[in-house]
Amino acid sequence: MKGAAYVGDGRVEEVAVDAPAPGPGELQIAVAYCGLCGTDLHIVHGGMDARVTTPLVFGHEMSGTVAAVGDGVSGWSVGDALTVMPLVWDGTCAACLDGNQHICQNLEFVGIDSPGALQQRWNVPASIAVPLPDGLDLRTAALVEPVAVAVHDVRRSELQTGDRVVVLGGGPIGVLIGTVARHAGARVLIAEVDANRRERIADLGFEVVDPSATDVVGFVTEWTGGVGADVVFEVSGSAAAVKTLTALPKVRGTIVVVAIHGAPREIDLQRVFWRELRLLGARVYRRSDVERAAELLAAGVIPVDAIVTGVVPLAQTQAAIEDLTAGRAMKLLVDVAGAGA
Amino acid sequence: MKGAAYVGDGRVEEVAVDAPAPGPGELQIAVAYCGLCGTDLHIVHGGMDARVTTPLVFGHEMSGTVAAVGDGVSGWSVGDALTVMPLVWDGTCAACLDGNQHICQNLEFVGIDSPGALQQRWNVPASIAVPLPDGLDLRTAALVEPVAVAVHDVRRSELQTGDRVVVLGGGPIGVLIGTVARHAGARVLIAEVDANRRERIADLGFEVVDPSATDVVGFVTEWTGGVGADVVFEVSGSAAAVKTLTALPKVRGTIVVVAIHGAPREIDLQRVFWRELRLLGARVYRRSDVERAAELLAAGVIPVDAIVTGVVPLAQTQAAIEDLTAGRAMKLLVDVAGAGA
Repeated sequence: MKGAAYVGDGRVEEVAVDAPAPGPGELQIAVAYCGLCGTDLHIVHGGMDARVTTPLVFGHEMSGTVAAVGDGVSGWSVGDALTVMPLVWDGTCAACLDGNQHICQNLEFVGIDSPGALQQRWNVPASIAVPLPDGLDLRTAALVEPVAVAVHDVRRSELQTGDRVVVLGGGPIGVLIGTVARHAGARVLIAEVDANRRERIADLGFEVVDPSATDVVGFVTEWTGGVGADVVFEVSGSAAAVKTLTALPKVRGTIVVVAIHGAPREIDLQRVFWRELRLLGARVYRRSDVERAAELLAAGVIPVDAIVTGVVPLAQTQAAIEDLTAGRAMKLLVDVAGAGA
Repeated sequence: MKGAAYVGDGRVEEVAVDAPAPGPGELQIAVAYCGLCGTDLHIVHGGMDARVTTPLVFGHEMSGTVAAVGDGVSGWSVGDALTVMPLVWDGTCAACLDGNQHICQNLEFVGIDSPGALQQRWNVPASIAVPLPDGLDLRTAALVEPVAVAVHDVRRSELQTGDRVVVLGGGPIGVLIGTVARHAGARVLIAEVDANRRERIADLGFEVVDPSATDVVGFVTEWTGGVGADVVFEVSGSAAAVKTLTALPKVRGTIVVVAIHGAPREIDLQRVFWRELRLLGARVYRRSDVERAAELLAAGVIPVDAIVTGVVPLAQTQAAIEDLTAGRAMKLLVDVAGAGA
């Protein structure tokens, strides 16, 4: 069987992988598709070298079917379509005991801390497998994981129908957040510096602004009749965006921090105080978010064709990473099953 | 009648003030005591010169009695003891219409934007007067306003009994927040750089740490058994405190920003994301907070003698401001009534 692994020094190589029978409590999955995301880019660029063990078969945005069922696993049959929620918690830390297993203090992220989905046969604990709704094709289902991120972020914001929502950053996660927010009844403005992405976002019916050419604070102030936004999602990861971030929400408005900010950022706390703002971190998802994401995809709510700009063979994983890094693609899927035996 | 006014250039002068009859809807107050706070220092140091009109009779932490009742005012009689909630909202902006009048987008703060309490006769709209509970003496009642700030901050945090709470900054507001939090069932640690204040805080039974000599993050981690604090109140206004602020709370813990941060601050947003923290601004108070503050003072919950370190005559207001600025006093009250006619 074949897989793709990060081997260090910015390189991804096709590797031969074993296909051991699933252990007790495990499912063996025939992986169909695996999407590539910002975290995967971060891995391949060496940003997680201190955390990962190479060669690492990475990948965590996947779809597939059950190839074999391990001892003691019930509720699954060979051929069942599924995705994986790639989180394994310890169940014993304070966060877990407090009901926040998804951000366990010792969380294992599958595909980073253990082998991921870029392999044709993949054994995982049955507890992290999530069945797909009827009628959801496997190519579309590879988006369940990023859509679950968006569902989690929107839920965390507690936004309500009729809210004015600003999304800073119009990459895949930004567009998915905008989509889920709009489906929840919000009016959505997306700020994005890349012209091609802006065009795509406008085609999806969103209002869109270029933060490199337009004063976003002034724009949002006018867009909200001087009130400010109900909810702002910070998905850009940009220091410049954070500088004016707190000027965007209304009195008692909400900011959700979705992006990774690897360095300390300058922020205007005076405005947080003055308007009694609420700033919330949002990370990964709960199982209910994953299930909701699959429902939204099955219902056709998510503009899959606008998000997924290409499907590449397994042997082209490195090139796909390079295309994504250079901004030549929005979301690329790897056709894992199609690589042949 | 006499008053004290900020006249510019860092100077406070005793001034003669008129005592016109109260207008329709107004009460004329015989001011008893007026506390001096950080905002008053900020005014006298010129930090609000762009906002205030000089000479400004400032002061907003007060107690007194009704001296005269204007036309159309019901429910008040001459001699009634009261304090004033020094906020006047427009009632028409989006914040007001959304139920957040206390942080109205066009809020008038009485004692900054209009004359305050450092005068022997003071006319205010009856709508902002708050009756005092029976048995609350006027000297103690001058603390209602700062205690209301603490009540508001603790309510905003949604802390629960049994929570571990860290207060960064052990000035009057920090100690009051600690007191209200402890009364609500929290275990409270206060971080304060000033040795005299630390001694006073320890005498009140709080756990206390010196952030200039101790690694507060390590201390709090150990103090909470590796979990992190449930709630952190940032009352220090210090850039250094903000740098490590997000390392203190537990997963899904809360930070309340109470202090004024006049410049952008560097903050670790990665930790906000990673632990799904919640950061809340908290400013002034609602009327229910003021009423609760008066109840807590009447019940003897607040360590008034530890907070109020002196009472000075009206003519000594400038010297009192200087003592507070130099850290030679915690909270000073001005004996306004005692200045004689």
